Amino acid sequence: MRILILGGDGYCGWPTALYLSGRGHRVAIVDNFVRRLWDHELGATSLTPIASLPERLRVWQRHSGATIESFVGDIADYEFIGSLIRTFAPEAVVHFAEQRSAPYSMIDRKHAVFTQVNNVVGTLNLLFALKEFRPECHLVKLGTMGEYGTPNIDIEEGFIKIQHNGREDVLPFPKQPGSFYHLSKVHDSHNIAFCCKIWGLRATDLNQGVVYGTVTEEVALDPALINRFDYDEVFGTALNRFCVQAAIGHPITVYGKGGQTRGFLDIRDTVRCIELACLHPAQPCEFRVFNQFTEQFSILELAQMVQTAGKDFGLNVTINHLADPRVEAEEHYYNAKHTKLADLGLKPHLLSQSLLDSLLNIAMEYRSRINRSLIAPRINWRRSRNDRKVECDASPQAIAVSGDGAA
Amino acid sequence: MRILILGGDGYCGWPTALYLSGRGHRVAIVDNFVRRLWDHELGATSLTPIASLPERLRVWQRHSGATIESFVGDIADYEFIGSLIRTFAPEAVVHFAEQRSAPYSMIDRKHAVFTQVNNVVGTLNLLFALKEFRPECHLVKLGTMGEYGTPNIDIEEGFIKIQHNGREDVLPFPKQPGSFYHLSKVHDSHNIAFCCKIWGLRATDLNQGVVYGTVTEEVALDPALINRFDYDEVFGTALNRFCVQAAIGHPITVYGKGGQTRGFLDIRDTVRCIELACLHPAQPCEFRVFNQFTEQFSILELAQMVQTAGKDFGLNVTINHLADPRVEAEEHYYNAKHTKLADLGLKPHLLSQSLLDSLLNIAMEYRSRINRSLIAPRINWRRSRNDRKVECDASPQAIAVSGDGAA
Repeated sequence: MRILILGGDGYCGWPTALYLSGRGHRVAIVDNFVRRLWDHELGATSLTPIASLPERLRVWQRHSGATIESFVGDIADYEFIGSLIRTFAPEAVVHFAEQRSAPYSMIDRKHAVFTQVNNVVGTLNLLFALKEFRPECHLVKLGTMGEYGTPNIDIEEGFIKIQHNGREDVLPFPKQPGSFYHLSKVHDSHNIAFCCKIWGLRATDLNQGVVYGTVTEEVALDPALINRFDYDEVFGTALNRFCVQAAIGHPITVYGKGGQTRGFLDIRDTVRCIELACLHPAQPCEFRVFNQFTEQFSILELAQMVQTAGKDFGLNVTINHLADPRVEAEEHYYNAKHTKLADLGLKPHLLSQSLLDSLLNIAMEYRSRINRSLIAPRINWRRSRNDRKVECDASPQAIAVSGDGAA
Repeated sequence: MRILILGGDGYCGWPTALYLSGRGHRVAIVDNFVRRLWDHELGATSLTPIASLPERLRVWQRHSGATIESFVGDIADYEFIGSLIRTFAPEAVVHFAEQRSAPYSMIDRKHAVFTQVNNVVGTLNLLFALKEFRPECHLVKLGTMGEYGTPNIDIEEGFIKIQHNGREDVLPFPKQPGSFYHLSKVHDSHNIAFCCKIWGLRATDLNQGVVYGTVTEEVALDPALINRFDYDEVFGTALNRFCVQAAIGHPITVYGKGGQTRGFLDIRDTVRCIELACLHPAQPCEFRVFNQFTEQFSILELAQMVQTAGKDFGLNVTINHLADPRVEAEEHYYNAKHTKLADLGLKPHLLSQSLLDSLLNIAMEYRSRINRSLIAPRINWRRSRNDRKVECDASPQAIAVSGDGAA
């Protein structure tokens, strides 16, 4: 299958590109490297030392014999993405090419506006390019479980049958996103649904949970193929950050009570879900939604699991409850459906002790690279301007294992 | 009350500004005149000859003794709107300053992207400006009934109680907007709801129906105060366009079967609804939604009403069914609630015979200004590029009353 991976240099995009290439698909990556630029902006780096994309691709070719093409550009540039859709003629486009951090979108007005314009315009451009040059191509779009928020009813996969005043209809599940970033994904979902309806496009919206882990079979083949692993407050996903905190004796920073419950999945399941979606495309005119996660946990449960797993490493892991920098329910009902990908054949990697070990292993292996000044939350949802002075704090002394507070 | 009217030079904004000024409020208008620019782009003009804003304001002061201040600028420019919110210190901001035509947003990619970026960024800027400089100010935002689409259940005012698997919650009413423009309003609604939640802002989202009419008590005081009246396929609202068609012997252009049912209201009710919302503000943190219309009709019903009313003018009005250029249900269930504004005291002007007479009177009075080449729909939802060659067809001959076809 000819598959174009937008954002193929990123945390989810890179292992997805390798996985699909390894499975015999013809894969091309599109990226403008803005994710690497944001590291500079934030004074952060991936815990794992990542190679440049050309180096990654050379090494992958050496190991696998497969070539992944790469195209450097911004999908906000219609001439670029339009021309690429026309010439590469993909059967599926996997769209990871968005600003994907909630805290980043909440820094200030410029970051909020950037996030929404970047994500919405990139997706609109893609939709127009598909309509003009490749209407039969299947769009596989990364959404987020965060689009739904935390309603007091079960969360369905995209649509819900509503009975009301003696009538009924199946309607889009109501959305209550919790950041300007999550809002941008809701905007995307509405735009994509509309284009499927008016132009007969076919799309799968993958409402993904919080991804953890960094290693896949392909990524593990060579150090130059290593995937990024973010632990900073802005781009670090919760479980990754907790493991890094445990590894350096930094208390795990649970925001508020920790009753916030979310869906989670292993990055090895992310790549498999993408392939499943590609292999079983939506029909023309169809806009379908899969909830892409495998298990749900509260944040406090995760923290406690890391604490327990840390004991095997001789780590004395403490848990700090910080005032929640986000505006969200700290305790709530949560039950989200996620059967559609399982029906297509997904066999989940569950968050067992071994996985925690593996996550903690990675964190321990690269602990000398950790800058602990990046961990404490400094972006507060209640403020409309959050100043982020970049601090230099990556000296060996600074990362000595200690039990001091988080903020 | 100190009230800022964003988009105060436009079709709804101008009579609203006059009405509020006439009721003793301190009113300021913000506009960048882009609506007048779009007339140039489309080769269209208001049926009624509208004066410049400075002229309008001078004449209003002469008649009423009241001064309406004006600020020329674009709310997409944050320095401009932020500074204005700070210095004018409004108690209410009425936000009409968006691209408001569905067909305009469907012309092509650039118009789609422009509409969404313009509307979403303008509203985001306003939200940040309120948060930073005037968080107690009440935002009165113009949304549209088109946000809901045409679900097979009753449409509630913004929120619906959903019972599901033995649990229940009150959630945002699911949205199924039908154009890139309507989508932009859905995006706005989600963004505004979020900012009310995280920052304690107060907002009223007025999901307005299709507005008809042009005359209010204030507008009628002087020819220089006359309101704009659009009849072209891009900016003309349905009933206005039908009356113009009747006046020049052009068949009424009903799209498809005409079973498309929508909410409608007289422009005199628009201005009153705005005042009611301002006088009864939302609470801090509250995002509330009013469905702002007074009656619902199918498009075919409207056409038949114009046909009947035309007889009194000796007009032989015919009705043409054109292939629907939009992608929409041509027959469907529709029952939308609209009690909240009535509860606040709205006394509707209903679409009686006299109203049709008045609308037809305006159309007849200015019929020499009609360019019939602007009427036929040339923007098709099924295409992603709609070329719009501007045609010159405003000669007296061209507008001779005749019964020729519409396209």
